[in-house]
Amino acid sequence: MQIAFLVFDRFTALDVIGPYEVLTRVPDAEVRFVAPQPGPVNTEDGAFALVARHGIEDVDGPEVVVVPGGAGKADVMSDAATLAWLSRAQETARWTTSVCTGALILGAAGILRGRRATTHWAFHDELAPYGAESAHERMVVDGNVVTAAGVSAGIDMALWLAAQLTDDTTAQAIQLAIEYDPDPPTDAGSPANASEGVRALARSLS
Amino acid sequence: MQIAFLVFDRFTALDVIGPYEVLTRVPDAEVRFVAPQPGPVNTEDGAFALVARHGIEDVDGPEVVVVPGGAGKADVMSDAATLAWLSRAQETARWTTSVCTGALILGAAGILRGRRATTHWAFHDELAPYGAESAHERMVVDGNVVTAAGVSAGIDMALWLAAQLTDDTTAQAIQLAIEYDPDPPTDAGSPANASEGVRALARSLS
Repeated sequence: MQIAFLVFDRFTALDVIGPYEVLTRVPDAEVRFVAPQPGPVNTEDGAFALVARHGIEDVDGPEVVVVPGGAGKADVMSDAATLAWLSRAQETARWTTSVCTGALILGAAGILRGRRATTHWAFHDELAPYGAESAHERMVVDGNVVTAAGVSAGIDMALWLAAQLTDDTTAQAIQLAIEYDPDPPTDAGSPANASEGVRALARSLS
Repeated sequence: MQIAFLVFDRFTALDVIGPYEVLTRVPDAEVRFVAPQPGPVNTEDGAFALVARHGIEDVDGPEVVVVPGGAGKADVMSDAATLAWLSRAQETARWTTSVCTGALILGAAGILRGRRATTHWAFHDELAPYGAESAHERMVVDGNVVTAAGVSAGIDMALWLAAQLTDDTTAQAIQLAIEYDPDPPTDAGSPANASEGVRALARSLS
């Protein structure tokens, strides 16, 4: 079962590492990090590079595709080869998924046309140009396309995916293996619960 | 404000990327990924390498240290140079922290002697030989040493740290920037809530 994580220069690391840490525990998963070209890609702030062992040319017909967001999304959204790869992958994949502003990359590949979708709360206005119906939900499933909200939402999405790919017992065991019993210090993680001041500062940190 | 993330061959990626995605948003944070030697280190399953730009020789007196766990911890726990670096760092750091079985690395460095500490739920028995008092909590603060439970607990810990390093408003804005409004599909993330079958399978996936 091939699971492909797309990475690119200036991606958001947790968008992809959250789902990876869940899905790599799916028995028989063959996890592949795929970049437009194989080799190192820098994370958003350049603090480290992730070495992708595969280029899009090497990965054909993955069962699951996970697309993160990040400051570098614009380059991917204008990279015809990567968009064509995504579009082709979606036709045969069991699940094509995004986290955060990775939804806009799916949009640019034509995958969200006529679908309900979510993204990072501060970027929902950018879904409409791709023909998507914005839904302010933590995760949206529309056909074989699953979109998750901002950054950390990929962990919740991946546990749902793990249950689809295996069974509830295995998904629960994965949740326990990563001890995902969240206890955030405040409930500020949703824009509905945050003050306008916090929202403005969060936009500048997103 | 220098924040050092220790990485090593066969580390658990989410242990360190969760806190990184929070702490890199602390204004004035200088994030450094530090390995025993600079260069690539493989994640636990070898799916990708993370290129650490710094070796322990290059990083002196960080304000915060974050130590992840992972299958490769044994090598670090017998690496005198890295343990000496950690022990020295703890003396001057504002916060010395671990996620998951990173606590055992702190223990091997002598940092947990006489302290309360937590780790991944399946590894609590391994704290005692280091003179630590095991506490089954999501996060334990003892002096300037903070230990977090398994894998995903690093995100909760890092948001607490962000509030200490800045202020509550900034920490809330970071929580909102990563949209950390968790919604796990089940409550199986704590061993107390999981069946014995799920616990056994989770041990094999940890």
